[in-house]
Amino acid sequence: MLQAAPAEPGMREEEIDTPALVLDLDAFEANLDCMAALLEGTGAKLRAHAKTHKSAVIANRQIARGAVGQCTQKVAEAEALAWGGVADILVSNQVVAARKLARLAALAPIARVAVCADDAAQIALVAEAAAAAGVRLPVLVEIDVGMGRCGVAAGPDAVALARRIAASPHLRFGGLQAYHGRAQHLRRPEERAAAIGAACDASRRTVEQLRQQGLDCPIVGGAGTGTFALEAASGVYTEVQAGSYCFMDADYARNLDAEGQPVGTFRHALFVLATVISAARPGLAVLDVGHKGVAPDSGPPLVWQRPEMRCTGLSDEHAKLEFGAETAAPKLGEKLRLIPGHCDPTVDRYDWYVGVRGGRVECLWPIAARGAMA
Amino acid sequence: MLQAAPAEPGMREEEIDTPALVLDLDAFEANLDCMAALLEGTGAKLRAHAKTHKSAVIANRQIARGAVGQCTQKVAEAEALAWGGVADILVSNQVVAARKLARLAALAPIARVAVCADDAAQIALVAEAAAAAGVRLPVLVEIDVGMGRCGVAAGPDAVALARRIAASPHLRFGGLQAYHGRAQHLRRPEERAAAIGAACDASRRTVEQLRQQGLDCPIVGGAGTGTFALEAASGVYTEVQAGSYCFMDADYARNLDAEGQPVGTFRHALFVLATVISAARPGLAVLDVGHKGVAPDSGPPLVWQRPEMRCTGLSDEHAKLEFGAETAAPKLGEKLRLIPGHCDPTVDRYDWYVGVRGGRVECLWPIAARGAMA
Repeated sequence: MLQAAPAEPGMREEEIDTPALVLDLDAFEANLDCMAALLEGTGAKLRAHAKTHKSAVIANRQIARGAVGQCTQKVAEAEALAWGGVADILVSNQVVAARKLARLAALAPIARVAVCADDAAQIALVAEAAAAAGVRLPVLVEIDVGMGRCGVAAGPDAVALARRIAASPHLRFGGLQAYHGRAQHLRRPEERAAAIGAACDASRRTVEQLRQQGLDCPIVGGAGTGTFALEAASGVYTEVQAGSYCFMDADYARNLDAEGQPVGTFRHALFVLATVISAARPGLAVLDVGHKGVAPDSGPPLVWQRPEMRCTGLSDEHAKLEFGAETAAPKLGEKLRLIPGHCDPTVDRYDWYVGVRGGRVECLWPIAARGAMA
Repeated sequence: MLQAAPAEPGMREEEIDTPALVLDLDAFEANLDCMAALLEGTGAKLRAHAKTHKSAVIANRQIARGAVGQCTQKVAEAEALAWGGVADILVSNQVVAARKLARLAALAPIARVAVCADDAAQIALVAEAAAAAGVRLPVLVEIDVGMGRCGVAAGPDAVALARRIAASPHLRFGGLQAYHGRAQHLRRPEERAAAIGAACDASRRTVEQLRQQGLDCPIVGGAGTGTFALEAASGVYTEVQAGSYCFMDADYARNLDAEGQPVGTFRHALFVLATVISAARPGLAVLDVGHKGVAPDSGPPLVWQRPEMRCTGLSDEHAKLEFGAETAAPKLGEKLRLIPGHCDPTVDRYDWYVGVRGGRVECLWPIAARGAMA
């Protein structure tokens, strides 16, 4: 159920109740500006992924800085965005349930909503829902460009599905979804370049074959925070779907540049603020947040500006921080910022962003699509 | 924010919208009965841990079957239970924030609320909050019996804190919190017995020293689903704090008995129902739930009654199931039950339990303390 907001505007950061999701507004805005600058002059626009932030407030700020719209993974996320004023939404995922497709079609009067498909039977279901709602839905064909998960093979299989979509009076062929998620987290730049090079080749070949069949491909979408510059420069991708760039997490910060240094394009803007609730033994501090509040799937969190403290245990509601005798022990009740290992699932645990600037709470933004999995 | 309920009473299980948290009511009730039977005649009562289920509905059913009350880890969980009619609640954790302690004290008029402490400064804060609210709060001293996290050393350090509590006009010494969480997941019975044997010795010694100081110790609490029978038989523990027993997850099912077989005391009652949304390649089915909906911290989920399918990938919103050529592939749109690796953090992602019996939805129960981390 909805949890009470952990702060009020005007409070000092130390007064925020914990655990809380704290957004450093200066760093966040710098990340939005940085992405806009990096994409300028490329052939690609940003369609930011809302699976990261789950918030119409953030979506609208991304759009104000040049994003063409948003991606979501779920219909329930698309609803939260459309109801919050976002006018162009792609569900970058397969949807097969009739009940969900009816909800998606019901959004068409207030937003352009598109969905992905990798199966003829699924396309028929989307067409049925669109027909019942009296709307025409754009459908993108998802091709597998190295992810090994959803998507048909690039080339003829994809073209056959595109023709099927284009032939339906209730659908419109929207383009190709060509996302290589695993490439985002390859640490060395030459590995990322090789993976995305192959994805670009597969996409380019498919676009060419579509054209030979008389089918225009309005969108080629994909990419994430780890590789978007490669897709944007490819001349093939028209939209990049980065999500984490606006927050940055500990995992993305492990990606290296050509000099073997952390890439460093974006700043850490999202933190879990936590309190020391036990300090009963030397060299150990226990925090009031565990993996229910900071996602463990990409490793433990880091302590912001305190690299000498290591998170050595993350249970349901506790994090153990260990440190050497030379480190000043944090005091009982002291608050520390954690950098999540992975932002997306961490955000999904909270109902509120607490926006801070200059040590003060400036705003509270609801995470309207928290838990929106349907 | 609150998500729409994924079903209505009377629906067939196949009609439930996914992902959904499905509770097999027959198995759940059998687990409650089984625990009641196992504790009968021991010196210990059940104080079930609500960090597992986060629901006043379930708490009240446990109490109706003999539990003396509930544990929580968080004040916000205690609020959800007290407001739902639970009259006896122990926050089995340290609370240091004044704002949280004021909220806890504010519950005292409607429920008996107790809290744990392992630090003199924290005891002073609890006393302040109790004084301000004009109530007297029971405080348990947490001792470290092998967990290596919170808690003072058993023996004199614990006695000193107990004396401090007993000396406060606003507090009452409530007993000892002696939880050994790690012991729950030791796979072999002799390992679990050795760990809990040591915890019992430390607790017994401390109770003895308290008595020598004229302090009665009304509660010795601890234990979980993996070891509660040992604590209950010890003659030292008066309350066992099992949580997972009512649901059972894949991780607890890996505990072995003396014959090297899975313990098998409790049945799997909790499932994540998911839908196949992509089946584009042979030997692979992709589900509409990932680690945002089924917690990954204790390993991937199992597929209920389909051991030939293995979950080989769990990303934010997708699970990959792989199977051999001899297995009939699940169809697009087919629904499968997953057994979560770890129930507690999985439950915390959902707003509703969908109770099913005989293939039909019987009830919807709100997960009132979903996300209650404060």
